[in-house]
Amino acid sequence: MAGHDLGSLEGTQALLETTAIHRWLGFRVIAMDPAAGTLSIAAPVAGTAARFEGADQAHGGALATLIDTTATFACSVMLGHAVPTMNLRVDYLRPAAGEEMVATARVRRSGRTVAVVDVDVEAGGKLVAIGRCVQATAA
Amino acid sequence: MAGHDLGSLEGTQALLETTAIHRWLGFRVIAMDPAAGTLSIAAPVAGTAARFEGADQAHGGALATLIDTTATFACSVMLGHAVPTMNLRVDYLRPAAGEEMVATARVRRSGRTVAVVDVDVEAGGKLVAIGRCVQATAA
Amino acid sequence: MAGHDLGSLEGTQALLETTAIHRWLGFRVIAMDPAAGTLSIAAPVAGTAARFEGADQAHGGALATLIDTTATFACSVMLGHAVPTMNLRVDYLRPAAGEEMVATARVRRSGRTVAVVDVDVEAGGKLVAIGRCVQATAA
Amino acid sequence: MAGHDLGSLEGTQALLETTAIHRWLGFRVIAMDPAAGTLSIAAPVAGTAARFEGADQAHGGALATLIDTTATFACSVMLGHAVPTMNLRVDYLRPAAGEEMVATARVRRSGRTVAVVDVDVEAGGKLVAIGRCVQATAA
Repeated sequence: MAGHDLGSLEGTQALLETTAIHRWLGFRVIAMDPAAGTLSIAAPVAGTAARFEGADQAHGGALATLIDTTATFACSVMLGHAVPTMNLRVDYLRPAAGEEMVATARVRRSGRTVAVVDVDVEAGGKLVAIGRCVQATAA
Repeated sequence: MAGHDLGSLEGTQALLETTAIHRWLGFRVIAMDPAAGTLSIAAPVAGTAARFEGADQAHGGALATLIDTTATFACSVMLGHAVPTMNLRVDYLRPAAGEEMVATARVRRSGRTVAVVDVDVEAGGKLVAIGRCVQATAA
Repeated sequence: MAGHDLGSLEGTQALLETTAIHRWLGFRVIAMDPAAGTLSIAAPVAGTAARFEGADQAHGGALATLIDTTATFACSVMLGHAVPTMNLRVDYLRPAAGEEMVATARVRRSGRTVAVVDVDVEAGGKLVAIGRCVQATAA
Repeated sequence: MAGHDLGSLEGTQALLETTAIHRWLGFRVIAMDPAAGTLSIAAPVAGTAARFEGADQAHGGALATLIDTTATFACSVMLGHAVPTMNLRVDYLRPAAGEEMVATARVRRSGRTVAVVDVDVEAGGKLVAIGRCVQATAA
């Protein structure tokens, strides 16, 4: 993460884009508050993330990747270093349909060893999936 | 799923390849036993799945996508129809390093409403992640 | 659930007390809003729920029981019938210390087959555990 | 845990019984292999664990408590010290009916920071619930 300014959207987006799958899925950091431990990432629903060819619904794996990445970056910008994901849970509530999906992560608790992060994903004005991630916080 | 022979590896692979993210991550169905409810998918660790540029470790989202897909296909070939994922949990045990990772799904229980599926992922001779998925089984 | 008025705290408490482990752990329904899908249950931290003899911290199993029960009752009073738990996740954030712990459940999504419910548990003015439950909603 | 011989069933049972909820639910350590990281606990299904008065099915909270306790003790006897639960997931597969339920925990991975433990619960000859727990392993 050296050389990236995680205090700005541009620097955080630059770090995000060093990973192929983030670029491929079109992830864009659209909001962040390092002090509050919140961060949002938007991505297109159709195209590369589609459940199957031509579907206007996102694949569960694309949603899990979005949730994992949003949680990881919410923690990283708060703590200033990498925070690997230890485990995650995703509940799919509705088909993720619409133009764009937006994941918003919120750090619920950050301790010496782990952080617990909740992620809501909305698409087409509806809550489509919720995630809960545990990140390893030791530097 | 119409037009795909889910009783053969080739037919199942053909269905798998109708989804862009499966092709992009290089998923290959390498074994399946519809009666037993088991199925294995292999994928390269580095390249598109890499945690970051040049890393020889897989991204947590790529692993979650592999787990979700392997569980879904294990159920689909057993039941003969689509089985959407309702929720999943992934525990990352070690960095997924090596040439290739192989996920093996095993249906633990398939009922009228849901199935519960366990997935082990190995890479470089080690267990690197374990997943547990709930699939909706109503046709 | 026949014969219990789930529109009132008293009726809901009466149903709660038909189960031995609820009585033993001292569960009390202290708030509910069936239309909003929220419900709160309070319980003593020490005594029967203690992690070990004389501890002023609650056992993880007592917390899981509190979370499971609060989620189940939040759904039951909303839907008017029994809603078995299909699966749950609990994250323990801090030792549950203090006189009393209070779990508050909130239905995030209730569909034809399942509901997803989030539960926050506070004790001594702090968030000590968070749970996420999937309930079967078919009558 | 001082003063308890965790190398024997009797010593482990003595430690187990220092906790009120373990005694109340009738938990008995019936098998353990500290080197392999496996341990089994049996408990009656009806009575204190009953879903409601007179039911011959176990409450989801009693099952979660059994799973949490079995995972914790499997790790504790392997590592020789206390290993608090960080998070758990329980999937309920069938009603836990029968005389007795038996939970068997197996440590899947034990590292410097955490261990991941799988727990199967059987009753009446059937798999009724499966759990996955993360334990904090630092001494």
